Formats: sequence, C-alpha cells, structure tokens
Amino acid sequence: MNEEQAFAAVKKSLKKRRYEHTIRVTEETERLAQRFNVNVEKARLAAILHDYAKYRPVEEMRKTIKEENLPGNLLNFGDEILHAFVGAFYVAKELNVDDLGVLDAIRYHTTGRANMSNLEKVVFLADYIEPGRSFAGIDEVRLAAETNLDKACFLALRNTINFLVLKQQPVYPETFEAYNDYAIVFKGRS
Amino acid sequence: MNEEQAFAAVKKSLKKRRYEHTIRVTEETERLAQRFNVNVEKARLAAILHDYAKYRPVEEMRKTIKEENLPGNLLNFGDEILHAFVGAFYVAKELNVDDLGVLDAIRYHTTGRANMSNLEKVVFLADYIEPGRSFAGIDEVRLAAETNLDKACFLALRNTINFLVLKQQPVYPETFEAYNDYAIVFKGRS
Repeated sequence: MNEEQAFAAVKKSLKKRRYEHTIRVTEETERLAQRFNVNVEKARLAAILHDYAKYRPVEEMRKTIKEENLPGNLLNFGDEILHAFVGAFYVAKELNVDDLGVLDAIRYHTTGRANMSNLEKVVFLADYIEPGRSFAGIDEVRLAAETNLDKACFLALRNTINFLVLKQQPVYPETFEAYNDYAIVFKGRS
Repeated sequence: MNEEQAFAAVKKSLKKRRYEHTIRVTEETERLAQRFNVNVEKARLAAILHDYAKYRPVEEMRKTIKEENLPGNLLNFGDEILHAFVGAFYVAKELNVDDLGVLDAIRYHTTGRANMSNLEKVVFLADYIEPGRSFAGIDEVRLAAETNLDKACFLALRNTINFLVLKQQPVYPETFEAYNDYAIVFKGRS
C-alpha cells in the first residue's frame, strides 16, 4: 500500500477535522522519525493509518474484539482506546498492510506499551504533540521531544495517567507499565 | 500476642511522633472496623503493628527482601513501601504473630492491592485518614469513609497515584491494580 492509497482510504473513513489531524500527525511523525533515526516511510504509513477505525461504531469494535480474539480486557476501558487496537486489525485485514512494525505503531498509538519500538514511539508521540493539540503539560512534552524521545514519551504517558486518574477513570494496564518502566529508569538517572 | 505486648514492641521500635501516629491509626481503625463490621481485635492488632519496621535501615530491609524471597520488584520502587512488606515478615518472625489476615493488613497498608479483605481495607484507610494526616484531597476520602469503605479506598488510591505520577515516581503495580479494579466498578455504577 503506497501513501496515496493510504490517504485515500482514511479520507473516506474520517471526518474532515480528523483527516486534518491525520495530516498533522503524519508531518509530525516525519519530523520525529528524521530526528530519531526511524524509517520515515514506515513511520509515515503508520501515521496516515493510525486513526483508520476512529469512526467505526463502538458496538462493531466491541464485536470485533470478541470475535477476533483481540485482548478481552479492552472492553473494560474507555471506548477511546478501542479504535487503535481494532484499527490495526482492520488495516491488516481490509487494506492488506502486513508490516508488523507499522501495525504495532497503529495498535499502541493511544495506550503506548512497555518496550515500544522507536517506530511506535514516534507515532504515539506525534499523535500527542501535533500542532493542533493543546493539553495541560503539552509544552513540556514538546520540549522534551526536541532532544529525548523516551523522556517525551514518559511525560506524555504521565500526563495521560494523571488526566485519567483525576477523572477517576481506569488506566489501560499497558499504559501504566510503560509509565512505570520509564519512571524506574529516569529515577535511577536523577 | 496481646495488645499490651504489641504496644510495648512498637513503642521500642518507633520514634515518639510515629508512635503517636500509631495510636491514632489504631483508634481510627477501631472506628472503621465497627462501622464496617470487621473483627475489631484483629484490626486493632494489625494497626498497632503496621509500622513496626518503619525505622529499620533501608539496607537491612533490602537485604531481607533478597534473602527471604520477598517480592523482588519491591526494590524498584520508593523505599517508603519497604517497611510494610518487611514489617509483616518481622512481625511474624520476631513477634510470632501468625494470623494471616493481620499479617496481610500490615503487608498491604501502604500500597493496597486488588481484592483487599475488609480487614486490610480498614487499616489501609485508617493509616491514610487518621486525624493527624493532611493531604490534598483527604477531606473527600474522610467523607466517603463515613459510609462507603470501597469508595474511600478508591479515592485514597487515586490520590496516591496522582501524587506519585506528578512527582514522576513509579507506582507499585498492586496499587495500580487496586485502583483500576475500583475504577472499573465505580465507572459501571455511574
């Protein structure tokens, strides 16, 4: 699947604002990929497709998770994270993308996970810091992303957990594991 | 071991301020135990002994964790949590307390864990809300503790995670699991 085909597929699936977000994530991913020596072609393809399933009906996604044996614990968490896991599945099945690194970058772009590949990290981070985003604490993440991919991912994960916990929402276990692994490493360094 | 012996043992082990905290935790534990139908005698014994190991040297606690096969992951987290796990071990070994429910209430009084017994919950909570404590968000926990033991534990866990994450500190996995289990339950109810 080339970029043109990928853009055409998501343009059909996404609302205009989400498609514009996708373009910004793709551009941000490219900048990060170049900065941190990640394969730009793969990173851009993952970025273009990262929100492919964003507007699938929640019930359809839940059904897919059950029928296709995606992780069952997904159903206990916010619907926000479903599109990433189901998206990787649909991108493989409907668009015939078979690069496992690209599919993992789509799968973990919202939750993150422990021991992400650099390809996963740049897509995860680009989705968080693309210029259209404004979250509490985002400036600190953008600053870290200038020089330190792991520190930037750590701060993004930290902000995400903080946001969810303040709202008394559950946190996907892989998000927490990713945060904790980084916290242990960065604590050791300080 | 009766209460008099337990108080004598901790009085010898603790600084004056910490001993006074222990008395307040014991009184708070008794109030909670009565309110939520927990065995008062066991709950008070666990409360009296909960900080037994508080002033053991960190190096001694780390050595005990390694030599006695306590959970190895403890060493990756803040020294603050060691005294609870090591404390349960010392209370069993040095004071010959053999009630597993009491020992678990000592062991999990700082981190909590998923599926705590009510005995564990009242000690965990009493240590958090005893009248000498003042944390951000504590009033909300105290209010919940008037009527809902689980909600109060949930809010205490939430505050603890929030505090640690803001400081970019790692969070002990059992604390997170306990939080998440509650978050999923309370989310379902709201």
